[in-house]
Amino acid sequence: MVGQKFIEMLQGHPWFRIEALAASERSIGIRYGQLTKWRLPMPIPEDIKDLEVLPVDPKSIGDVDVVYSALPAEEAKAAEEDFARDGHMVFSNASSHRMDEDVPILNPEVNCEHASIIDEQRKRRGWSGAIITNPNCTTAVLTLSLKPLQDEYGIRRVLVTTMQAVSGAGYPGVASLDILDNVIPFIKNEEEKVQSETLKIMGEPVKPAKFKVSASCNRVSTIDGHMEAVFIETEIKAPPSSVAEVMAKFQGEPQRLKLPTAPNFPIVVRHEDDRPQPRLDRMEGKGMSVVVGRIRRDEVLDGIKYIVLGHNTARGAAGCSILNSEYFKAVGLI
Amino acid sequence: MVGQKFIEMLQGHPWFRIEALAASERSIGIRYGQLTKWRLPMPIPEDIKDLEVLPVDPKSIGDVDVVYSALPAEEAKAAEEDFARDGHMVFSNASSHRMDEDVPILNPEVNCEHASIIDEQRKRRGWSGAIITNPNCTTAVLTLSLKPLQDEYGIRRVLVTTMQAVSGAGYPGVASLDILDNVIPFIKNEEEKVQSETLKIMGEPVKPAKFKVSASCNRVSTIDGHMEAVFIETEIKAPPSSVAEVMAKFQGEPQRLKLPTAPNFPIVVRHEDDRPQPRLDRMEGKGMSVVVGRIRRDEVLDGIKYIVLGHNTARGAAGCSILNSEYFKAVGLI
Amino acid sequence: MVGQKFIEMLQGHPWFRIEALAASERSIGIRYGQLTKWRLPMPIPEDIKDLEVLPVDPKSIGDVDVVYSALPAEEAKAAEEDFARDGHMVFSNASSHRMDEDVPILNPEVNCEHASIIDEQRKRRGWSGAIITNPNCTTAVLTLSLKPLQDEYGIRRVLVTTMQAVSGAGYPGVASLDILDNVIPFIKNEEEKVQSETLKIMGEPVKPAKFKVSASCNRVSTIDGHMEAVFIETEIKAPPSSVAEVMAKFQGEPQRLKLPTAPNFPIVVRHEDDRPQPRLDRMEGKGMSVVVGRIRRDEVLDGIKYIVLGHNTARGAAGCSILNSEYFKAVGLI
Amino acid sequence: MVGQKFIEMLQGHPWFRIEALAASERSIGIRYGQLTKWRLPMPIPEDIKDLEVLPVDPKSIGDVDVVYSALPAEEAKAAEEDFARDGHMVFSNASSHRMDEDVPILNPEVNCEHASIIDEQRKRRGWSGAIITNPNCTTAVLTLSLKPLQDEYGIRRVLVTTMQAVSGAGYPGVASLDILDNVIPFIKNEEEKVQSETLKIMGEPVKPAKFKVSASCNRVSTIDGHMEAVFIETEIKAPPSSVAEVMAKFQGEPQRLKLPTAPNFPIVVRHEDDRPQPRLDRMEGKGMSVVVGRIRRDEVLDGIKYIVLGHNTARGAAGCSILNSEYFKAVGLI
Repeated sequence: MVGQKFIEMLQGHPWFRIEALAASERSIGIRYGQLTKWRLPMPIPEDIKDLEVLPVDPKSIGDVDVVYSALPAEEAKAAEEDFARDGHMVFSNASSHRMDEDVPILNPEVNCEHASIIDEQRKRRGWSGAIITNPNCTTAVLTLSLKPLQDEYGIRRVLVTTMQAVSGAGYPGVASLDILDNVIPFIKNEEEKVQSETLKIMGEPVKPAKFKVSASCNRVSTIDGHMEAVFIETEIKAPPSSVAEVMAKFQGEPQRLKLPTAPNFPIVVRHEDDRPQPRLDRMEGKGMSVVVGRIRRDEVLDGIKYIVLGHNTARGAAGCSILNSEYFKAVGLI
Repeated sequence: MVGQKFIEMLQGHPWFRIEALAASERSIGIRYGQLTKWRLPMPIPEDIKDLEVLPVDPKSIGDVDVVYSALPAEEAKAAEEDFARDGHMVFSNASSHRMDEDVPILNPEVNCEHASIIDEQRKRRGWSGAIITNPNCTTAVLTLSLKPLQDEYGIRRVLVTTMQAVSGAGYPGVASLDILDNVIPFIKNEEEKVQSETLKIMGEPVKPAKFKVSASCNRVSTIDGHMEAVFIETEIKAPPSSVAEVMAKFQGEPQRLKLPTAPNFPIVVRHEDDRPQPRLDRMEGKGMSVVVGRIRRDEVLDGIKYIVLGHNTARGAAGCSILNSEYFKAVGLI
Repeated sequence: MVGQKFIEMLQGHPWFRIEALAASERSIGIRYGQLTKWRLPMPIPEDIKDLEVLPVDPKSIGDVDVVYSALPAEEAKAAEEDFARDGHMVFSNASSHRMDEDVPILNPEVNCEHASIIDEQRKRRGWSGAIITNPNCTTAVLTLSLKPLQDEYGIRRVLVTTMQAVSGAGYPGVASLDILDNVIPFIKNEEEKVQSETLKIMGEPVKPAKFKVSASCNRVSTIDGHMEAVFIETEIKAPPSSVAEVMAKFQGEPQRLKLPTAPNFPIVVRHEDDRPQPRLDRMEGKGMSVVVGRIRRDEVLDGIKYIVLGHNTARGAAGCSILNSEYFKAVGLI
Repeated sequence: MVGQKFIEMLQGHPWFRIEALAASERSIGIRYGQLTKWRLPMPIPEDIKDLEVLPVDPKSIGDVDVVYSALPAEEAKAAEEDFARDGHMVFSNASSHRMDEDVPILNPEVNCEHASIIDEQRKRRGWSGAIITNPNCTTAVLTLSLKPLQDEYGIRRVLVTTMQAVSGAGYPGVASLDILDNVIPFIKNEEEKVQSETLKIMGEPVKPAKFKVSASCNRVSTIDGHMEAVFIETEIKAPPSSVAEVMAKFQGEPQRLKLPTAPNFPIVVRHEDDRPQPRLDRMEGKGMSVVVGRIRRDEVLDGIKYIVLGHNTARGAAGCSILNSEYFKAVGLI
């Protein structure tokens, strides 16, 4: 699903063009159109349909400026290293390198200054390329909503319960017998990722943030769009109306640099009682904005609670990788 | 939906039998089978199908021992008072009287001692009957899971995010266009009810409990069964394995009295990673047990977190009313 | 839902602009943004949001070139007549006038020559305006797929089983309790409409076609997009590969006139085993093309069978009305 | 899913008890409770949970009276032959032997006299055991509804469009991304099976029926229960009210023999406009009755049309196998 979203989001991109597709052994030599079970409403672009799938190997790919990785974690580890060693800038959705100290997890409106971590990565590993990861989908959505709060009020504790879409599990992913008329209160390793990645992203380079995060992750019967019910204890008082304002006006480097995939406002605040909703709001900012609603005082934590929704394969995966690569290009790192 | 569940759950009841059905003005005189849009897999019982609907008025109902109310809140207020004044024991699902100081909200495994509140009610109001309410569906499920924790570890704070089934909104209730491929992060008045009712139920009679509750309520695409992701700060340390044991062995008065609708164990603890699930677990104990899973340490609140599931129209509504009436009968209050 | 789709599809229209919105008594004077429960992913256009709803009365609407009607059938009858009498061209989705002999049902690629029926309508009724209807959603999709077959092979019998989306029932429409984990094998009056409208559309003006149609209509759990399984007995042999070719190259007047809302090809033929699918194919041609797949020989009827999918609120409702108004404008009837 | 349904339906069976479970190579030696991803609301029976899975080999199974097979078609072919050769009566859901001329497909209310085909099977193959198959799920439901019509009116042509539940594809089976907000108009080999099996079942032993069947098979978003929209041309006139009566009173050998799994009436006729519905009606007769509704005249075929619903894993699979085995026992063939 993430691979398909990459293809969709790179169509007509002003800076980048897909030159080659690589996949695991059993797919090599097959045309992509034959290989993929395309699940997006947009048809497969004709030129991509005919691309022959290449081996995941820098030698077979040749001279490209950017490598996007949506490999399974177990395959990603060595393969991404091969590409970085070979001089490629690898923008990865895989979790395998995210928690390496010298690999940044970038959600660019939140922590683009972490890009500098790759200097250490290159030095330590002797690579001319580098690996830059983006957060897991749930974390990407969460941290974007947290950033203006951290700046304005300080954060002490975050408790988050997620209601995640099935596309997050890839294809075939979640069996229909598991999710029709059902909720699954478990997604393997997801809570651990949310808890550790959030602190890494929201800290200083190589110094995790000091606040605490606890997550409870659930799969629900939606196609795209992760909903998260967030409770926060802030350091200073955060009145809901100020929070709404601070979030709504928030912009980051991608906005200042006018990156092609950056939405005008990365956080859209809705004031209706019953928003955000996945089906209606997930495409906000072409899937790159998160939508926040129901901002209200939380007496129990002495803070606030709200709902945030983000498109898990756009902001939460392929879109975030692309935005990261745009940032690198804009600041001369590619 | 709650009215239908009452009929289902009272079929073959050893102590009670449906003598009469009453409903609002426009339904009077129509046979129930003609009137209702029956939505349960069990067919309407033949004898009930032919019952003529009577006015909601003690005079028209005649001599019955127990009155169950699933009236809309606005109609329930005066009507339930009429019945109580007339000497009837009214077991009500409506919210209109729940927060009256002299009306108990009973979830019998949790606070059957609150039954005594009706003495004050009768004295103050000069009634020979009484109104006994049961909690709103979400609260019924939550408080049952909290009770053994309160007894064993003490509770300081509770944060709960719910994923509630559509049957909780009645029929026609939630529009399909609102819930297919969607989540609605809002249920009118629900969070307020969870927060206030929980403290009333878990306190002493007329003295609400002192801990704090914060709720974030969502509607998801399930038919029956409310899921709740609970985070708790306890007064003394609550190791997950002890919590599991304490919950699994918990029993209350309904179990000791062997009430007909009481499940053997009101809390069933599952140890699989991915349980409870609404479709698979909501009928546990014929819908009267709640199912708890994923009990784990919560570092953020210094306590525990877990998932609890309960059948919203059984334990959360009709079943709880029936269990309350059984309790009253067993202890001689009817 | 159809009203909202009109607004969506008229945004940025090169020829038409929404000047006024009218609705029934209880909505008059309210701003549309306050009134509507907007259910489309696209936000309400800002200028439409602020429009004050006017009475359904030609006097209150003033000078407009085109009137689109998505009124409930019972309100549409008199109201549409009032507007036509007052000189307006009324393009209506309502069923109330469809079977009037002097009112055309236009699906413009299929029977644009029926536009001439309005001459008789005006003469007979003494109107300067006219009422032009479009087919019910299921019929619009079906007849578009039948047209090239009728032309090429002749049609003797059509049997069609539909699987229709919930948006076809409007909002709130289908209750979630009725459609989650369910199929409803009944849609009021739908089969009668499909059977009679198809013959009127596919006949000559005021002379219904002679073939026979039988329909079995079902509601399934999809948001948009009506699927139809069609079995056809043709007059001359219709080999599946020729049928595919004839359908794929089919174009009508809207294509020749290059009308703004006309898709390049009104029928898109898919050759994969498992297409069309509502979620993936309903937006083909911006919702104005139907998608046909699984064309295969039917030995039982000595003909063919296939699946056709169309967007029920685009080609099946608002889009067809708009296309009709474009046709009238292009040929000088407006 | 079928294996699990066998276990569910054999719980507490008066004649049969599960002695052993066998499965493919990679499962051997594992306890069933460890192995299976149990998807039924009923918990796994404790004694079955602990059964160690054995090899699919008559030698490892030992002395049992009945062998039920829910093997994948490709594994079933040789394995079922091994068991029959070894003297076992094999009741199989697999399709591999269904169309063998000397193997009966039994839907016992429809064609229990076909049981005699095993004489030829044994003679020809030199087996002391035998293979008895039951129809594919869609065919089991269809043929049961057709039987009284064939007897009373004669059948010339049958056209059927199905809307099939996801459990029919096993587990994990249909991906949620394929079926949420979607319909899939294709099920591999299903239409061919419906067409050929129906004629074999409804003919005389080894002489297929002469009428014609055409099927169009779709997967929809329901958990259990196959819906079928049927159009029939009858030999003599079949007025809908007579059809309803003939179907409702229909009984077969299983009813006369009072077999434990036989429902009182294998066809239940509903007279409401909007029934049958999968969620409400699939458990009729514990899943062993089919439910027919919307019986109406079909002018196009000069016959009738109706909707039939049946539980695909009960009547359509495990339940039909069990009923067949009961029939064999009752008539002394086991």
